[in-house]
Amino acid sequence: MRSIEAPMDVVTPLQFSLAYNAFSFTLAAMGAATAFLWLSRSQVAPAYRTALTISGIVTAIAAYHYLRIFQSWNEAYVLKDGIVTATGFAFNDAYRYVDWLLTVPLLLIELILVMRLSAAETASKATRLGTAAALMIILGYPGEIATDIPTRALWGTLSAIPFVYIVWELFRGLGDSINQQRVEARDLVRKARLLTFASWGFYPIVYMAPYVGITGGTATTVIQLGYTIADLLAKAGLGILIFMISSRKSRAEAHGDTGHYA
Amino acid sequence: MRSIEAPMDVVTPLQFSLAYNAFSFTLAAMGAATAFLWLSRSQVAPAYRTALTISGIVTAIAAYHYLRIFQSWNEAYVLKDGIVTATGFAFNDAYRYVDWLLTVPLLLIELILVMRLSAAETASKATRLGTAAALMIILGYPGEIATDIPTRALWGTLSAIPFVYIVWELFRGLGDSINQQRVEARDLVRKARLLTFASWGFYPIVYMAPYVGITGGTATTVIQLGYTIADLLAKAGLGILIFMISSRKSRAEAHGDTGHYA
Repeated sequence: MRSIEAPMDVVTPLQFSLAYNAFSFTLAAMGAATAFLWLSRSQVAPAYRTALTISGIVTAIAAYHYLRIFQSWNEAYVLKDGIVTATGFAFNDAYRYVDWLLTVPLLLIELILVMRLSAAETASKATRLGTAAALMIILGYPGEIATDIPTRALWGTLSAIPFVYIVWELFRGLGDSINQQRVEARDLVRKARLLTFASWGFYPIVYMAPYVGITGGTATTVIQLGYTIADLLAKAGLGILIFMISSRKSRAEAHGDTGHYA
Repeated sequence: MRSIEAPMDVVTPLQFSLAYNAFSFTLAAMGAATAFLWLSRSQVAPAYRTALTISGIVTAIAAYHYLRIFQSWNEAYVLKDGIVTATGFAFNDAYRYVDWLLTVPLLLIELILVMRLSAAETASKATRLGTAAALMIILGYPGEIATDIPTRALWGTLSAIPFVYIVWELFRGLGDSINQQRVEARDLVRKARLLTFASWGFYPIVYMAPYVGITGGTATTVIQLGYTIADLLAKAGLGILIFMISSRKSRAEAHGDTGHYA
């Protein structure tokens, strides 16, 4: 949201506490999701265990970064005697990009894995979507730390190209595969795709906040809460859907067929 | 990169943040790789589980050392009010050597284990390659902490002898064994060998940087980022290849044959 040299935005005590508690909540929620997803591996058929492993890795990585974000917030501000002061240590927004660089490709891979496509299709879709996702994050970062709007807009626009490609792949390329999912799981897979699209769509909106002149402590707080809610939906929320799809498909496949039909 | 008594190189705020975030990223990535490799043990045939156990041990050891490296970096420099100052506490580069002394022999052993050679061949190759790898690290360290170039060059050259032997073993000794791998896995095993060779080849280049007069904050940052990228490829990257080889060979062997043919 700001360059590392820029002065800190002042937040009110309420804003400080809101973000503080939201970060702690998210750390707990991501840790809980990790435990749930990893412990549930034994409840599903072997074909879906890697999807649960990776879903839990995503929430574990997020839990780690929310711990760091929480600590960084507490180093950046001190709330004492009802007054918030900036300490001079910058709040490190880069943790989010570092997190996304790891987790966003993995989120697409867990979505592909749970669909149980052929090995060749899985590899090709995972490679293409994973690469596009990493590219999207890498191209977004120079704009995030830029101090002027034109630079931010340039990198934001470049980052939008792989994002549009991912959306196109999710709705066109994966659309056919979703129609071939067994009927019990088809709706849930569509929901998982929609959740991914809707929660991801939120990030560029937050990214563009400075374009329209939103700055200061209120903006900092809104942006931090916004990214946090989006992360909860995109990671823990998607993880639960992945578990439900895995468990429903495991049950249905135990009745004898392969899980694929056209 | 410097003797423990030498004054700290000054880094810019951007350089400080780049290394800081790269260390945190690598800690998260190594932890994620560990979880993935250990949880995936149940997905492969028993013959390949030790390879996954050891691959995960390598990334777990690396995660531990990146936590230490991250903390050491934060003790060596303070970024406050947009200015970096050296605290006087030296950044401890020895963590890398301690890490490599443990992980480098294990990396070669995981590569040998996944090939599923005869017990005698596994033991003899693991002993020879593991010993050579440990020797390479031990001989490199006196040069790393030396204050003058001739001493650095002397130990660097001594350390290169076991390195050349390892490369020779990988391409000659293991070459025949790779040709006897089942056809489904042969290409992946070749890729794992190439990844090992290419990522390891990077370390001596970084080691030789002071020979050509590269010093100062920029060099510190480039060297730290370089070692970090090499570690990610050599450890987490190789781990994923080891999982792919194990899982492909397990699937093929489940269809009845032994997994060996000439």
